[in-house]
Amino acid sequence: METSHSSATRKLYQILIASAIQRCRLSGILCGLTVSLKGFYDSHPPSVRISISDTRAGSHLPEFQDLDHGSVPIPAKKWGIFQRSRISPKNFPKPPLKSYDKFNPWRHGHPMKYHGRILHMFNERSLIAAPRIHQRSFGSACRNVQRNPSFSTIDSDDISYFRDVLGDKSVIQDVDRLSSANIDWMHKYKGSSQLLLLPKDTEEVSKILHYCNSRKLAVVPQGGNTGLVGGSVPVFDEVIVNVGSMNKIISLDKVSGILKCEAGCILENLDLFLANEGYLMPIDLGAKGSCQIGGNVSTNAGGLHFVHYGSLHGNVLGLEVVLADGTVLDMLGSLQKDNTGYDLKHLFIGSEGSLGIITKVSILTPPRLSSTNLAFLACKDYSSCQKLLLKAKRGLGEVLSAFEFLDKHSMELVLSKVEGARNPLPSSLHNFYILIETTGTDETYDRAKLETFLVNSMEGGLILDGAIAQDINQASSFWRIREGITEALLKAGAVYKYDLSLPIEKLYEIVEEMRLRLGSSAKVLGYGHLGDGNLHLNVSTTHYDDNVFAQIEPFIYEWTSAHRGSISAEHGLGLMKADKIHYSKSTEIVRLMASLKKLLDPNGIMNPYKVLPQSMLQDK
Amino acid sequence: METSHSSATRKLYQILIASAIQRCRLSGILCGLTVSLKGFYDSHPPSVRISISDTRAGSHLPEFQDLDHGSVPIPAKKWGIFQRSRISPKNFPKPPLKSYDKFNPWRHGHPMKYHGRILHMFNERSLIAAPRIHQRSFGSACRNVQRNPSFSTIDSDDISYFRDVLGDKSVIQDVDRLSSANIDWMHKYKGSSQLLLLPKDTEEVSKILHYCNSRKLAVVPQGGNTGLVGGSVPVFDEVIVNVGSMNKIISLDKVSGILKCEAGCILENLDLFLANEGYLMPIDLGAKGSCQIGGNVSTNAGGLHFVHYGSLHGNVLGLEVVLADGTVLDMLGSLQKDNTGYDLKHLFIGSEGSLGIITKVSILTPPRLSSTNLAFLACKDYSSCQKLLLKAKRGLGEVLSAFEFLDKHSMELVLSKVEGARNPLPSSLHNFYILIETTGTDETYDRAKLETFLVNSMEGGLILDGAIAQDINQASSFWRIREGITEALLKAGAVYKYDLSLPIEKLYEIVEEMRLRLGSSAKVLGYGHLGDGNLHLNVSTTHYDDNVFAQIEPFIYEWTSAHRGSISAEHGLGLMKADKIHYSKSTEIVRLMASLKKLLDPNGIMNPYKVLPQSMLQDK
Repeated sequence: METSHSSATRKLYQILIASAIQRCRLSGILCGLTVSLKGFYDSHPPSVRISISDTRAGSHLPEFQDLDHGSVPIPAKKWGIFQRSRISPKNFPKPPLKSYDKFNPWRHGHPMKYHGRILHMFNERSLIAAPRIHQRSFGSACRNVQRNPSFSTIDSDDISYFRDVLGDKSVIQDVDRLSSANIDWMHKYKGSSQLLLLPKDTEEVSKILHYCNSRKLAVVPQGGNTGLVGGSVPVFDEVIVNVGSMNKIISLDKVSGILKCEAGCILENLDLFLANEGYLMPIDLGAKGSCQIGGNVSTNAGGLHFVHYGSLHGNVLGLEVVLADGTVLDMLGSLQKDNTGYDLKHLFIGSEGSLGIITKVSILTPPRLSSTNLAFLACKDYSSCQKLLLKAKRGLGEVLSAFEFLDKHSMELVLSKVEGARNPLPSSLHNFYILIETTGTDETYDRAKLETFLVNSMEGGLILDGAIAQDINQASSFWRIREGITEALLKAGAVYKYDLSLPIEKLYEIVEEMRLRLGSSAKVLGYGHLGDGNLHLNVSTTHYDDNVFAQIEPFIYEWTSAHRGSISAEHGLGLMKADKIHYSKSTEIVRLMASLKKLLDPNGIMNPYKVLPQSMLQDK
Repeated sequence: METSHSSATRKLYQILIASAIQRCRLSGILCGLTVSLKGFYDSHPPSVRISISDTRAGSHLPEFQDLDHGSVPIPAKKWGIFQRSRISPKNFPKPPLKSYDKFNPWRHGHPMKYHGRILHMFNERSLIAAPRIHQRSFGSACRNVQRNPSFSTIDSDDISYFRDVLGDKSVIQDVDRLSSANIDWMHKYKGSSQLLLLPKDTEEVSKILHYCNSRKLAVVPQGGNTGLVGGSVPVFDEVIVNVGSMNKIISLDKVSGILKCEAGCILENLDLFLANEGYLMPIDLGAKGSCQIGGNVSTNAGGLHFVHYGSLHGNVLGLEVVLADGTVLDMLGSLQKDNTGYDLKHLFIGSEGSLGIITKVSILTPPRLSSTNLAFLACKDYSSCQKLLLKAKRGLGEVLSAFEFLDKHSMELVLSKVEGARNPLPSSLHNFYILIETTGTDETYDRAKLETFLVNSMEGGLILDGAIAQDINQASSFWRIREGITEALLKAGAVYKYDLSLPIEKLYEIVEEMRLRLGSSAKVLGYGHLGDGNLHLNVSTTHYDDNVFAQIEPFIYEWTSAHRGSISAEHGLGLMKADKIHYSKSTEIVRLMASLKKLLDPNGIMNPYKVLPQSMLQDK
C-alpha cells in the first residue's frame, strides 16, 4: 500500500543514505550514521523533518546542509532540525553554518532530487560501518551458550497471529532488515532470528509478550541497538521486538521539567525537543543520535554528564513496563516524591530487558543553562589528577559538569591515528590530561571562576599546563582528543575493551599493573570518567592474540573484584559478561536476582542468555 | 555490672535529661530532645562527647553550653560536639556563642555535677513531649488490625537464646524502656512489645532474624523512631530490634566523598563528621538530631534539600541488608556506577523495614559549599509562585538549594501561635510566601546573583515584596516562619496532617477545594516543598471532630488519586496508610509488591501490618 508520497520519501531517504555511505568511505574512519525523516502531514504546508546524526566520531552534520536538493519544493530552511554530532558540545554558542564550509565535500556533487509533498510519516534508521575497520570477536564475546531447549520455534500460525495483531507492515521477515537487526553495531554479536516485530503501542507489546509467553517463544527487546555487550541482539532465534516505532513525546510539564515519552524516542531527539523549552536530557552519550530512551533506561546508561546530573535511578520518575506474561505495569508517575510502597521501577532500570519491556518513561529534566566552559589541562601524575578532582568539586562545586581524564598513551595514540587531532598543549607531552567542563547561568562569572581555579591549581603545582577553549572550534578540538580515543583504537588494530568502576584512589593502578604484565606486546590505555570513578581500560594490539588475551582475563576481573570494583560500570553485562557477574556480586545476591527473574518471567523468555548465568535459571 | 564510671555517666545523663524536661516545660511548646553521651575510653585523657539536639522547634542548643558543670574534670571545650537545632541553617556563618546569651535561661541555675573519668561508652536517647499539648489519635491512625494468628509469642527459651547471643545488656525487658520503644513520638501509635533487642553488629542482627523467622516471631525494626505514620513501633507484641547501637562510621573516601557507616548513625552526627571533611549529607530533616540513617534510607526520607540533591535512590550507593531468614545481603558497594545485574538495593530504599533490616549504608555526599543565602518573598497568587519556581530554576540554576512555600493561612497561624515569630515582610499580609535558599562557592557572586534575580522578578510583577537575610539571625527568623507551622498547628488544637505529591500546577487546588468543603468549621493550611511538588496540607480545628474527618477522608485521597498524585510524598505508608495504597498504586503493582514481600519474607515476620494491606499477604 505504498503511496506516491511515501515512495517519494523513500527515494529521498535512499539518496541520503547513499550520500552518507559515500561520505563514510571518503572519511576513512568508522561512521555510525542515523538518517531519519518525519513528515508532518497535517501542517500547512506539509513539511518534512530530516535528521542526520553521526554516532561515532569525525563528521559534522552541517556537511549535509548544502546537499543540492534540486527541485525539492520544501526549502532547506523548512527542513527543520539538522542534528549536530557530539563532537561539538551543543551548549556552546553555535557559529553560522558557513564556518563549516571547509569541511564540505558535498558542495558540488551528489545531487539529491526530491519531488512531491510528504503526507506520510516515515522513519527509518541505518547504521553503517566503513568496511576497512579491523573487526573481531574477542574471547569474552564468544561464550559457549546452548539454546534453551524449552523454547519453541516460530511457525506459520505464529506469523499469522502477529500479522493479525500488528498488521503486515510491522511483522518483518525480510532478510536484509532481519540481518541488520540480528547484529550489533560492532559486529561482535550475531543472532539468527527469523522475525522482527515493530509494535506501535503498549497494547501491541502486551499482546506480543502474552502470546510469546504462552507459546514459550523467546524474545529480545531492541531499541537503538547501540549496546557494547551483546544485550540487544538475539543469541539464537529469539523474536526481536523493536520499540523504535513507539516514539511519541507524551507531555512536558513546563514548570517542573518532567518529560513523559514513549520508549522508542531517540535520546538526541528528546534533547532537541527540550532545548526549545529550556530543558535538557540529564544523560548525554556518544550514541545519542541512535540510542533510544527505553534502551538508556534498560541499561542504566551513564555517559558524560553523570558527574553533574547523577544516575538514571535518580532522574527517572516513572516507567510503564510490560512483563513477560503481557501484564502492563503502570508505574508512569511523574512525581518527584512518592513513598507509597516498594519503588518497583528501579528493578527495570539496568535490567537489560530481562525482566520486561519498558514502553514509556517519565524523567525529570534539568533546566538548560546558558553558559559552558571547557579547559584542557596537563598533570604530572595520577595523584595530581585525584587532587585536582577534589579541588574542582570544592572550588567549582555547583558548576562542574564534566571531569574526564586520559593518560599519555591515549594522547599519543589519538595524535598518531586521528586525522586532524591536535594537542591543545603542544609544548611537551605530559603523563595525564584532564578535561574540565563547567555549566552555569552566567558566562562571565563562570569563565572568571574557572580561570581563578586554574591559576590557583597551577600555582599549587597540580596543573603543569592548560588551556581554556576560546570558541566552539577549540572546544570541539579539545573534545576531539577525548572522544577520538575509540576511533584511534579501532584504527590501531585489535582492541580489548574494559569498563570498570573502581575506588578513585585505586583506579589507575590496574592500568599500570596491566602494562607491566603485557610488556611490549600491547599498548595499555587508561581514560574515562574520572569524576565518577569510571575507568575505560583498553588494550591495543596489532592483531588478536590468544596469549595476550590470556594475560588480561581473568586477571582484570579478579583484580577488580579484589578491590571491590565493578566489572561493568556503565556498559552492562549483556551476553558478554553474564557468567562473570560473580566477580562483582556475591552468591546470595545473584541467587536473589535469579529468584526475581523467575518470579517475573517464569518461562525465562525475556532476553535469555543475558545478564545472569544460564546455569542459575535453567536448572530449576 | 554497673561500674562507678558508667554510674557517673548515668548521673550526668540524668541531670541533662532533667534539665531538658524543665526547659521544655518552661518553653511551653512541644519539644523533642535527644541527649546522647559517648565516652572515648581509649583516648588520653579519656573524654566524653555530649550531644543534645531538639528535633522539633524552638530551642537553641547553645542554651546548654553554659550549664554549670562544677567539678567536672573535663573542660567544656573538650566535650566535643554541641549539636545545633535545624532552626539555624548550619551553612550560615556561625556567630560567637555569646550572641545566644539572651536565650539562655540556664546561666545561673540548674547546676550539673559530674565526677570521674568516662571509661565506658554510654549512649541513650530520650524523647520528651511537653504535657500540655493536645494529642489525639485520628481516624486513619486507628485501623482495625487483627494480630496475625500465625505468629508465635515470646517465651523464656527465646529470652535465653537472645541473652546468649547478644549478652544480657542488649536484651531489654525493663518496663520503662519498653514503654518508650512501644510508642511513637506523636503518641498516636502504641504497641505492646515485651522485648527490645539492641544488636551491636550485623552478625547479631542476622542471628536475631534467623531465630525469629524459624520461631515465627514478628519483628519491628526501629531506628530513631521519628516516623509520622506508625511504621517504627510495634502494633501488637512484635520484637523490637533497635539498631541504634550500630553507630560506627566505617570510612570516608576523601576524594569522592563516599561515606560508609552503620545504620544506627544519627543523621546530624554524620553531617557534623562530614563538616570537618568538607562534605555534607545530601538530606536534611527537622528530625536530624534523632533520626538514623538506616531509618532515613528505609523510609526514603525527603526533606528540605531534595530540590538540590535529589532522592536517596540517586545518592545511596550501597546497602548491607539482613533478610527475614538471616541472610546477609552485601550490596555495600561504594561505586558511583555499577551495572552488574539488577540493582537490588532500591527494593530496600523506602520499603519501611518490611523486606529486611538495613545494617550498613554507603552514600555519596556532596561537597559542603561555603556560601548560603536566603530570601523571604511574597507573591500575590499561586500562579506567580509557579512562575517564580520556573524562573528560579532557570535563573538561579546551579545554586538553587531550597524552594519552600506557605500560604497566608499558615503565616497567620504562625504569627499568632509561635512565640517570637515575626513577619519578615510586615507592611501587609500577602496570599503566598516563598523561601528561596541558594548554596554556592562564592558569597559575593551568589548574593549578587540572587539580588539581580529578585529585582527582575519584582519588576516583572512575580514578587510583591521580599527580603534577603543579612545575617544568621535573620536567616533563623525566616526559617522560623516555615518551620514553626508544625508547632503552631499543635498549639491550635487538633490537626489532620496530609503529605501529598501532586503535579505542581494542580498542587494548590486541593487546598482551595478543601477550604470550600470545610467552610468555617476548620482552618486549611497549605505549605511545603514546592520545588519538589510536595504539599503539606493540614486541617486545623480546635477539637477532634468526626464530621470534619468525614469531610476530609476519603475525599483527599480520591482527589489525589484522580490527579495521579501520591498520598505519601515523603512520610511513607506505615500503619496509617497501609490499606490506602490503592489510591496511588494499581492492583497489578500492589500484587507484585505482595509477591516480592512473600519471596523475601515468606513468614511475613518483618514489620507486619505496615506498608501493604494485610489482606494481600495473609490470604495465601
